[in-house]
Amino acid sequence: MTTIPVGIVGFRGYSGAELDRILSKHPRVHPLLLEHRQDTGDRPEPLHVGGSPRIPCTPEAAREVGIEIVFLATPVGVSIELTVQFLAAGIRVIDLSGAFRLGTVGTFTRWYKEDHSAPHLIAEAVYGLPEFYRKKIVGARLVSNPGCYPTAANLAIRPLLHAGIVNRAAGVICDAKSGISGAGRKPSLQTSFCETAENFSAYSILNHRHVPEVLQNSGLEEREFSFTAHLLPLNRGILETIYVRAERVESAERILEIYQAQYAGERFVRLYRPGVVPDLFSVARTNFCDIGFHFDAPSGRLTVVAAIDNLVKGAAGQATQNMNILLGFDEAEGLL
Amino acid sequence: MTTIPVGIVGFRGYSGAELDRILSKHPRVHPLLLEHRQDTGDRPEPLHVGGSPRIPCTPEAAREVGIEIVFLATPVGVSIELTVQFLAAGIRVIDLSGAFRLGTVGTFTRWYKEDHSAPHLIAEAVYGLPEFYRKKIVGARLVSNPGCYPTAANLAIRPLLHAGIVNRAAGVICDAKSGISGAGRKPSLQTSFCETAENFSAYSILNHRHVPEVLQNSGLEEREFSFTAHLLPLNRGILETIYVRAERVESAERILEIYQAQYAGERFVRLYRPGVVPDLFSVARTNFCDIGFHFDAPSGRLTVVAAIDNLVKGAAGQATQNMNILLGFDEAEGLL
Amino acid sequence: MTTIPVGIVGFRGYSGAELDRILSKHPRVHPLLLEHRQDTGDRPEPLHVGGSPRIPCTPEAAREVGIEIVFLATPVGVSIELTVQFLAAGIRVIDLSGAFRLGTVGTFTRWYKEDHSAPHLIAEAVYGLPEFYRKKIVGARLVSNPGCYPTAANLAIRPLLHAGIVNRAAGVICDAKSGISGAGRKPSLQTSFCETAENFSAYSILNHRHVPEVLQNSGLEEREFSFTAHLLPLNRGILETIYVRAERVESAERILEIYQAQYAGERFVRLYRPGVVPDLFSVARTNFCDIGFHFDAPSGRLTVVAAIDNLVKGAAGQATQNMNILLGFDEAEGLL
Amino acid sequence: MTTIPVGIVGFRGYSGAELDRILSKHPRVHPLLLEHRQDTGDRPEPLHVGGSPRIPCTPEAAREVGIEIVFLATPVGVSIELTVQFLAAGIRVIDLSGAFRLGTVGTFTRWYKEDHSAPHLIAEAVYGLPEFYRKKIVGARLVSNPGCYPTAANLAIRPLLHAGIVNRAAGVICDAKSGISGAGRKPSLQTSFCETAENFSAYSILNHRHVPEVLQNSGLEEREFSFTAHLLPLNRGILETIYVRAERVESAERILEIYQAQYAGERFVRLYRPGVVPDLFSVARTNFCDIGFHFDAPSGRLTVVAAIDNLVKGAAGQATQNMNILLGFDEAEGLL
Repeated sequence: MTTIPVGIVGFRGYSGAELDRILSKHPRVHPLLLEHRQDTGDRPEPLHVGGSPRIPCTPEAAREVGIEIVFLATPVGVSIELTVQFLAAGIRVIDLSGAFRLGTVGTFTRWYKEDHSAPHLIAEAVYGLPEFYRKKIVGARLVSNPGCYPTAANLAIRPLLHAGIVNRAAGVICDAKSGISGAGRKPSLQTSFCETAENFSAYSILNHRHVPEVLQNSGLEEREFSFTAHLLPLNRGILETIYVRAERVESAERILEIYQAQYAGERFVRLYRPGVVPDLFSVARTNFCDIGFHFDAPSGRLTVVAAIDNLVKGAAGQATQNMNILLGFDEAEGLL
Repeated sequence: MTTIPVGIVGFRGYSGAELDRILSKHPRVHPLLLEHRQDTGDRPEPLHVGGSPRIPCTPEAAREVGIEIVFLATPVGVSIELTVQFLAAGIRVIDLSGAFRLGTVGTFTRWYKEDHSAPHLIAEAVYGLPEFYRKKIVGARLVSNPGCYPTAANLAIRPLLHAGIVNRAAGVICDAKSGISGAGRKPSLQTSFCETAENFSAYSILNHRHVPEVLQNSGLEEREFSFTAHLLPLNRGILETIYVRAERVESAERILEIYQAQYAGERFVRLYRPGVVPDLFSVARTNFCDIGFHFDAPSGRLTVVAAIDNLVKGAAGQATQNMNILLGFDEAEGLL
Repeated sequence: MTTIPVGIVGFRGYSGAELDRILSKHPRVHPLLLEHRQDTGDRPEPLHVGGSPRIPCTPEAAREVGIEIVFLATPVGVSIELTVQFLAAGIRVIDLSGAFRLGTVGTFTRWYKEDHSAPHLIAEAVYGLPEFYRKKIVGARLVSNPGCYPTAANLAIRPLLHAGIVNRAAGVICDAKSGISGAGRKPSLQTSFCETAENFSAYSILNHRHVPEVLQNSGLEEREFSFTAHLLPLNRGILETIYVRAERVESAERILEIYQAQYAGERFVRLYRPGVVPDLFSVARTNFCDIGFHFDAPSGRLTVVAAIDNLVKGAAGQATQNMNILLGFDEAEGLL
Repeated sequence: MTTIPVGIVGFRGYSGAELDRILSKHPRVHPLLLEHRQDTGDRPEPLHVGGSPRIPCTPEAAREVGIEIVFLATPVGVSIELTVQFLAAGIRVIDLSGAFRLGTVGTFTRWYKEDHSAPHLIAEAVYGLPEFYRKKIVGARLVSNPGCYPTAANLAIRPLLHAGIVNRAAGVICDAKSGISGAGRKPSLQTSFCETAENFSAYSILNHRHVPEVLQNSGLEEREFSFTAHLLPLNRGILETIYVRAERVESAERILEIYQAQYAGERFVRLYRPGVVPDLFSVARTNFCDIGFHFDAPSGRLTVVAAIDNLVKGAAGQATQNMNILLGFDEAEGLL
C-alpha cells in the first residue's frame, strides 16, 4: 500500500521528533521533515541510517512532493506565519502551538501578551480534542492541537461539570505536574539539569496560559478554577490531581458511570475502578489519557487523578489522532 | 566546653543518619549510636575514619555513658517499646515515629490500624512543633516529633485559619509531594529506583496517616480537608501546594501580614513577598520551612506553597530543635 | 495470519515484562504468561484492559495451549529447574539467566559460587549471540541468552582480536556502566532510589560473573582483561568504554573496515564514522548494539564505545531474535 | 574575632556559589560578591534574608573594602583579564579557570585553541594542588586552581608512577565520569535535563583540555595516557576508574603502603583497604579525595577508583584550601 506524505516543521524539538517517530511507523503515511531553520541540535548518527527525508520549508517544496497536511511543532509566532502560507497553498495544517487554541483575539492577547497577526484564522481553527470535537475536526483546514495540560484537565473535568455534580462555589482545583520536555528543547536555565534534578517547583500560579483553554472547553469561570503548574524532575509525563466537591452523588460507582457514559467507545481514555489511580508509567509513550479517582461520599470530597504522556496525547499522538480524522483513517491508526 | 552525650537509635535509616550528621557538628552535644538490631546497610568506609561511637541499645548502657536524652528514629512498634524502657530509666525521649503524635488511642488505632501497647503515654507526649507548642516542650519527658507532611501543612494553614479568613465550606486542599527518603531506607518495590525514576504517583488519597496530625493541630474537620500525598523522583524535600478560598481579605499584603504576625521572631519559618514561592532548593539541607503564596483578591483564590527538607525540618532538624529546647540551649544551636 | 503461542516465565521482572511488550506486538507469535510464583509486583490497571493471558507454570499447561517455546526470565536456580522440566516435555527453552552461558561446570561453579544441578545440559546449550553463532542456534533445543554486559563487550572486542590488531600484552580494558534495571526488580538496598540517585559506584571489580562470558567468546585470557561494572542512576542502558592498544593499524578508516567486514549484513549492529560515538539515547528501546571509536594512530590508543539497551539487545530483544531464528522467521521480525 | 574580607567573581555559577557557601561559614574570612556582569540567574529569595554583600567588580572597589584575595570563578577569557587588573592593584588571585594551569603558552594554545593575552603570568602562576605543591603556594600572588578531573587523576596516579610500579608501555587509562555541574551553569543543549537524564555519554575522547594538566603533573607522556570524560545524569561528583599494569609489586598491601607513604598527614586524601572503593556518596559535599583499589597480583591488573565532589575538592573547596595556605591559616579551616 502506498503511503501519503505529510510534513513536519520543528522536527528537532521534542514534539516534532515524537511526531517523526510515530508517523514513521504509521501504516498509511510517511513523514517528510521541513527544514525551517538550521539549528544545531542534531545528535550523533550511525552510518547508513536514513532518517525521514528533508525538504525546504516552503509551500512550493511541500506541494511538489505531494504533501497535503503539515504539522507545525513550532513557537506561536512561527506557527501563525507558516499557517497563513500553507493554507494559502491549499495545504491543511495541524498546529501544535498555542496560536489558534483560544476562541477570540482578545483572549489570545490577554494570555499570550502579544498581538495576533492572523486574527481571521482564529474563528476558523478547530480545537483538536477528538473526544469532544470529533465531528468538527473532520472537515477542518486548520486544526489547533490542544495544550498538554488542558488535554488531561478537560478530559477529567468536563464530564463531571456536564453531569451537574460539581459544587462550583467551592471551585475546581487542578494541581498539575509536568515532566521537563513540556518546556521544549530550547536551552534555558529553567530546564537545565542542575536547576531541576533534585528540585521541584511551582510556576505560573493562577496565570498559566493554558488556563483559558480549560475555561473555554469546560464552561468553568476563571474565578472558579485554580490551576498550578509544577515542574517534575523527569523527561515526560503529566499528572494532574483535581479536587472537586461533588453534590447529589451517593456513591463512587455513580461517578464511574458518569465517566463511562462519556467515554463509551473512546479508545484513548481509560478508566480505573474507584480508589485506584494511574501513575505516569501507566501512560508513558502511549496516547492514552488515564483517569482514576477517590471519592468520599459523606463529605463529597472527590479527588481525580488524570495522567497523559505530554509528548503523545499531549502533543504528537493527539496530532496524529487528528490527522487520522482529517484523512478518513481509523482514528487509532498508528497509535496503539 | 564539654559536650553532652545524646543517643540515636535507628542511625542507619535516613532520619537517624541525618541526626548523626547534625548532632556531630552541634557545639554542645555529641551523638552516640545505639545498636538496636544489626542490619546490613553499612556503607564503604575509609581507613582511620572514626564515626560516632556505638553502644548497645539498652537503658543501662545509655545511663552508663551519661545519656539523658535519646532520639528514636525507629518504626512505631519499636518506638513504643523503647520509649517505655528509656522513660522508666529516667532518660527523656524524642520520638520521630508516629507512635505518640495523635491525641487519643482511638485516633491512633483508626489511622495506624494497630493497637497501642503504651496508651498511658499518649496523653503525656508533647507534640514537638516548637513554633506552636514551645512552652509545653520545655519540661517534657516525651516529645513526639511531628510528621514531615504535617510540619509544612500546619505551619502554612494554621495562621490562615486562626485569622478567620478561610472559607471552610469550600475546604482546604493540600496537594503534597515528597522525595523518596520520606519512605524510609527499608528496601521495597515502592522505593526502588526503576519504579520511581521517570515516574510520579499519588498515594494514600484522603487516608494518609498524617491527616489526623493536621486536623488536631489546625482545628479543621476531616470533611473540610483534602490531602493527597505524591512521590517525587528525588531524594529529599517536601513541597505542598495548598488551596484555600479566602474571605474578608482585601489584598495579598494583608495575608502576608497574617503570616508575619504569626511568625515574628521565628528563625525557621521564612516568608516570601506575594507572588514569589519557594522551591525545594530553597530549603534543601536546612531546617527552614519556607512559605510563599499567590492571591487573587477578586475571587478569593489563595494558593500557598510551603517547602521543607523532609529529613531536616521534617525529622532530624526539628528533633534537634526540640532537644535544644529540652536542654535549655538556644533553639537554633547547631541548626543554622 | 494465526500467531504461535510462546510462554514467558518471570513476566513481572524487567526482562520478562519487556519480553511481553515485544512479543505482544510481534506479528507471528503471541505471549502467554506462566505464573510461576505469586508475587506482589502488579501495577494499577485500567478497567477492561486485557493483558496477555496467564496460565500455570507447568509443562502440561504449556503443552495444552500449544506452546513450543518458553522464555525463562528467572534466577539461575529456577531456570535450571524449569529448563529440565520443559525440555523433558519437548518444549524448547530460551533461558535469560546465567545458568547455561558458561562452557563448563567448573567455570560455572567458580564464578557463580554454587553447584549446577543439570550439568548435562551445559554442553547442549547454545550461546545465543546471533551475530557470532547464528548457525548453531537454528536447531537448538536450549538457547542460553547472553548476559547484558558480554553482549556489548563481545560485539565490540571480538572483531579487533580476530583481526589481530590488539596488543594483548597491554591488555583489554572494559569500563562498563549499566542502568539499574540490570540488577532486576527484586527490592534491595543496592537498587533503592535514595542509594543510587545522585550516586555512582563501581562494583565487582575484576570478578563480575559476566567476565568469563567475554573470555570464552573472545579468546582473551583472564589476565589480559580488566572489567569493571558501574551502576548508573538511570533506568536502562549499558555503555562500555573499551581501551585497546592497536598494532599494525595505520588509520582509523582501517579499523572501521574491520568492523564493517565483520558486521556486513547485520541488522542489529550499527557503526559510526571514526571520532563519533553513540550514547544511551542512540539505542534506548531498540535492539541495536551501536559501536563507535576514536583512534590515535601514532600512539595506537584506541577507545571504543559500545552501547545497548540492557533490556532489549541485552535481554528480551536478543531473546526474541533467537526465537525468530528457532522458528525460521526473519531474524528482525518484531524488532525494528 | 574579626574576619578578613575576600572577593568572589562569578558567584552565580556553581563553583562561585559553592565558594560563597563555604566562605560564609569560614571562621576567619567573609565573602564579598563582585558583580561582574548582571545576569538573570537569581533564585527566589525569602524576605529579610541577607546574603553576602555585593560590590562592583573593580580593583578599586575591592581595595576600598580591604579585599586582599579574590577568587575568579569565571571563564578563561574573563579570568585572564581580571587577573591582570587585580594583580596590578596588589590583590592576590586564586583563579578557578583553566587560564593559568598549563606550563607554557604553547600548551595552552594547543589545548584551549585560543591565544593567551597575558603570557607573562603563566610562569608566575602556581598550580594549586596543595598535596603536591604546598610550599610553592605559600608565597604566590597567583594560584591556578586545578581542574576537577586532574585533581582526582593526579592524586590517584602520581604516587604509583613515583613508586616506579607502573608498566608505562601498557599505558595508564583514566575512565572519568562527572556530574553535570562540571559543565557550568550557562544553559546549553548539552546540559539540558531532557538531553542528559536517562542518558549517559562519552565526550572529548583523548582530547579533553584537562589531559595536559595530568601529563605535566604526573610525568606521563601523552601517548601513554588514555582519558575519556563521561557525563553522568546527576548534579555533582566525579568518579574516575583508573587502569594500570603494576610491575614489581607482590601484594595489594604494598600498594596501600605506597599511597599511605605519600599521603601521611594529608587531611583531604582518604584511603580504603584493598578491595573496597569509594562511591560518590563517600565524598559528596566534602573536600575529600577518596582513593580505593582492587589489585590482582598474579596478573598485575590494578584498578584504582578515585572520587571527589567536583564543586568542592574539584573547585571551591580546593580554592579555599589554597586561600588558607596563602593567609597562613590551618589548611583545613572551614573545610571539615
